[in-house]
Amino acid sequence: MIPRGFRFAGVRCALKNKRNDIGLIVSDHPTVSAGVFTKNVVHAACVDVTRANANNLRAVVVNSGNANCCTGEQGERDARRMADLASQAVGLPASEIGVASTGVIGQLLDMAKVEKGIHEAGTVLGEDFRPFMEAILTTDLVEKWAWASLDDPARVYGPGETVPASKGPIVLGVAKGSGMIAPNMATMLGFIVSDAAIESHEAQSALSDAVATSFNCLTVDGDTSTNDMVLLLANGAAGAVTPGAFQQALDAVSTSLAKQIARDGEGATKLIEVTVTGSADPKRIAKTIAESPLVKTAMFGCDPNWGRIMAAAGRAGVEFDPSFAKLTVRVGSDSFVLFEAGGPAVFEPARVSAALKSDHVRLILELGPDEPKDSATIYTCDFGYGYVRINAEYHT
Amino acid sequence: MIPRGFRFAGVRCALKNKRNDIGLIVSDHPTVSAGVFTKNVVHAACVDVTRANANNLRAVVVNSGNANCCTGEQGERDARRMADLASQAVGLPASEIGVASTGVIGQLLDMAKVEKGIHEAGTVLGEDFRPFMEAILTTDLVEKWAWASLDDPARVYGPGETVPASKGPIVLGVAKGSGMIAPNMATMLGFIVSDAAIESHEAQSALSDAVATSFNCLTVDGDTSTNDMVLLLANGAAGAVTPGAFQQALDAVSTSLAKQIARDGEGATKLIEVTVTGSADPKRIAKTIAESPLVKTAMFGCDPNWGRIMAAAGRAGVEFDPSFAKLTVRVGSDSFVLFEAGGPAVFEPARVSAALKSDHVRLILELGPDEPKDSATIYTCDFGYGYVRINAEYHT
Repeated sequence: MIPRGFRFAGVRCALKNKRNDIGLIVSDHPTVSAGVFTKNVVHAACVDVTRANANNLRAVVVNSGNANCCTGEQGERDARRMADLASQAVGLPASEIGVASTGVIGQLLDMAKVEKGIHEAGTVLGEDFRPFMEAILTTDLVEKWAWASLDDPARVYGPGETVPASKGPIVLGVAKGSGMIAPNMATMLGFIVSDAAIESHEAQSALSDAVATSFNCLTVDGDTSTNDMVLLLANGAAGAVTPGAFQQALDAVSTSLAKQIARDGEGATKLIEVTVTGSADPKRIAKTIAESPLVKTAMFGCDPNWGRIMAAAGRAGVEFDPSFAKLTVRVGSDSFVLFEAGGPAVFEPARVSAALKSDHVRLILELGPDEPKDSATIYTCDFGYGYVRINAEYHT
Repeated sequence: MIPRGFRFAGVRCALKNKRNDIGLIVSDHPTVSAGVFTKNVVHAACVDVTRANANNLRAVVVNSGNANCCTGEQGERDARRMADLASQAVGLPASEIGVASTGVIGQLLDMAKVEKGIHEAGTVLGEDFRPFMEAILTTDLVEKWAWASLDDPARVYGPGETVPASKGPIVLGVAKGSGMIAPNMATMLGFIVSDAAIESHEAQSALSDAVATSFNCLTVDGDTSTNDMVLLLANGAAGAVTPGAFQQALDAVSTSLAKQIARDGEGATKLIEVTVTGSADPKRIAKTIAESPLVKTAMFGCDPNWGRIMAAAGRAGVEFDPSFAKLTVRVGSDSFVLFEAGGPAVFEPARVSAALKSDHVRLILELGPDEPKDSATIYTCDFGYGYVRINAEYHT
C-alpha cells in the first residue's frame, strides 16, 4: 500500500527510447514539503524553479532523457512552462509544482513532446507508483524504491519484497541515479512522499538530516550533477506522528535508496560500504577511499589490496598516527583483518578474495578507539569495464 | 651527452620480472641537492630517510618491484640498510645517499637480493643512464627522460630525439610513474641531475618552483602515492650559470617529464592538457576536470561532451558566473569552440570527435578575461578499459 492521498503517473512522450519519460506525482490534500538541491555552480533551470517553491509543493513533474541544463534563457522558459503544463494537468497553481529533469546536458527540450506527455500523465494518475518510477530512469538498470511504516519505522522494504498493510503513516521513496553521483547530491533524483502529519517547519530539517547520512554519503564517481534534488511531500492523510518515528522511517527509506543507487552504479558489480572510525573527520577519509579509482578497481578484481586503502586514507588531508599502532583494516562481510597493530595481518588471500566476490562488501578502517560520533559510512560501488563502456560510448 | 661528473647504473636482482630493479646514481664531485616528497600520511620509510638528508645528497639508490611501505620497524631498518649498502658501493657516507623504492605496498624487501643488486650496481657505474632508467620502472610502458642545455634552456629533448653537444651546463631528468599519480606527487619518482654550479640555498627553491608547475600539475587517477619523491643533484662540473637560465632548463625538463608520465598513464591512449583561465583558483577547477571519471571516459570515447567539463568545473568549490556569459569551452589541438556566450556553440560533432582521436588533446575552459596569473594547466590522460585491466588484475 502507498501513502494515502497520493497519485502517480508515468507516460512515454519519446524524449528517450523505450521507457516512460514523463512522471507526475500529486497529493489530493494540502501538504508540507521540503527540498535539498545540488550545490553545483552549473545547474539546470529546474533546480532554481523548484528551489523557489520547495516548501510549498503539492505536486511534482519530472522528465528524463534531457536534463535541460546549460540551455540558456530558452531552457529557463521551458522549465517554467513544465510547471505551467503540470499546473493545468493537476488543477493546482504553478507555484505548487516541483520540476525535475535528468538526462543529457546542453540540448533544448522538445516541448511539443513534453506538452503532450504532461497532458497525458494528468489523465492516468493512479495509485500504482511503478509507471512514475520508470519515468525517472536514465542509465539505471533497476528501479529503486523503499517503503517504511511508522508502525515499525526501522524495518524498510525494497525491490523484491511485498510491503505489509500499515495502520500508521507510511514513508515511500523512489529514486534514480547511477552515474555522476557524489556527495552534495548527484544525477540523482529522489521523491519521498508520506501520509504522516508533520509540521511545516519540521519537514526541511527532517529531510536535511536524512540526506546528510544517506544521499550525501553516496558516491559513484565523485562527479556531482547539475540537476540533483530530493523532495519530500507529506499530506497528513494518515494522522499525526511522533517526530522521532517519522525521522527514523525517513532515514531508513533514504539510506535504503542510497544503497540501491550505489549498487546500481554504472558498471558496478557490487555495493561497497566504506566505514571509518576513530577520526576527527571520518567522512572525509571514507569519501577519499570510496572515490579512489585504485581501491574501486581492486574491489572489481576482488583483490584484498589494503595498501591502496591505506594510501587513499593517507592522502585525505586528515592527520592520523603514522605508526599505525592502533590502525586496523578489515574487509568483507566476514570482516577479515588485513592490517593491525602496525603491520600486515596474516590472512589467506584466496579466502579473502573469495569473500570479495560478494555483491555487498564492507571496507572498515579503524584509526583509534571506536566512538560513534567519530564514525562515518560512505556508500559506493566498484569500478570495472562496464563503467568505461557506458561512459565512453554514451553520446550526447 | 650527460651532465659531467655523474655516473649511473641499473642491474637486475629479481625483485620483479624481466627488467632491471636496482638503480644507482653518483656524482664524482661534491654536489648541492634538494628534494620534494609525498605529503601522504601513509608513506614509506625511504621517504623519511631521504628527507632527512635531502640537502646533502651526492648519490641515490633506488629499487623497483617493492615499495617497502607499511612494513613497520623492519621496513625502516631495511631502508637505512639500503643507504649503508650504497655507501659501501660508492664510497660515500650513508648520510649522502638518497633512498627511493617503488612497487607493491606491504611486503618486506628481500634484502639478500637487494644487497647483491646494490653491490653489483656499484661495479658497473658508467655514463649511460638507460640501465638506471629501466631500473625505476613498474607498470610504465615507456622510459621517460628529458634533457636541456643551458645554451638554449627552453629547448627540451626527450625520447626519440638525439641530444646535441652542449658547451654549457646540462639538466637531465629521468622519471617513472603511471598509476597512483596525483598532485602532491605520485607513485612518481624523478631524479634530476645537472653539472651546473648553483648555490646550495638556490637548489631547494629552484626544485620546489619547478615541481609546482609540473609534477604537482600531474594527475592520472587522483591517487597520491606513499613513496613519491623528486630529487635534484647539481655538481657544478660545467661551471656557474645565471639562476634564470638554470630555472628555465629545470622547468622545461620537469614539465616534459610530467607530460611523459601523463601520456603513459595506466591504460591511457592520450595526453590531456586541461587549462583554466580567468578564475581566482584555476588550478582547483582544472584539477577537478582532469580527475573527473566522466570527462576522462568521454575523452577515451572521443566524445566532445562539454556538459561533463562544465559540470565538473561547477563542483570544484570555486564560484563563477552561473550565467556563463563569459564562459568558453574549447577542445582539441585545433581549438574547436563547444560553448560560448551563454550557450552551446554550433559545431560538427564528427569533426570534433575526429580531432579528439589525437594522442594529445587540449581542454580549455575560459571563465573570464585571460590574465596569466589566473591561469593553470593540469596534465592528465584519458580513462579506458586498460586502466581497469591493469588495476583490477594487479595482485599484490
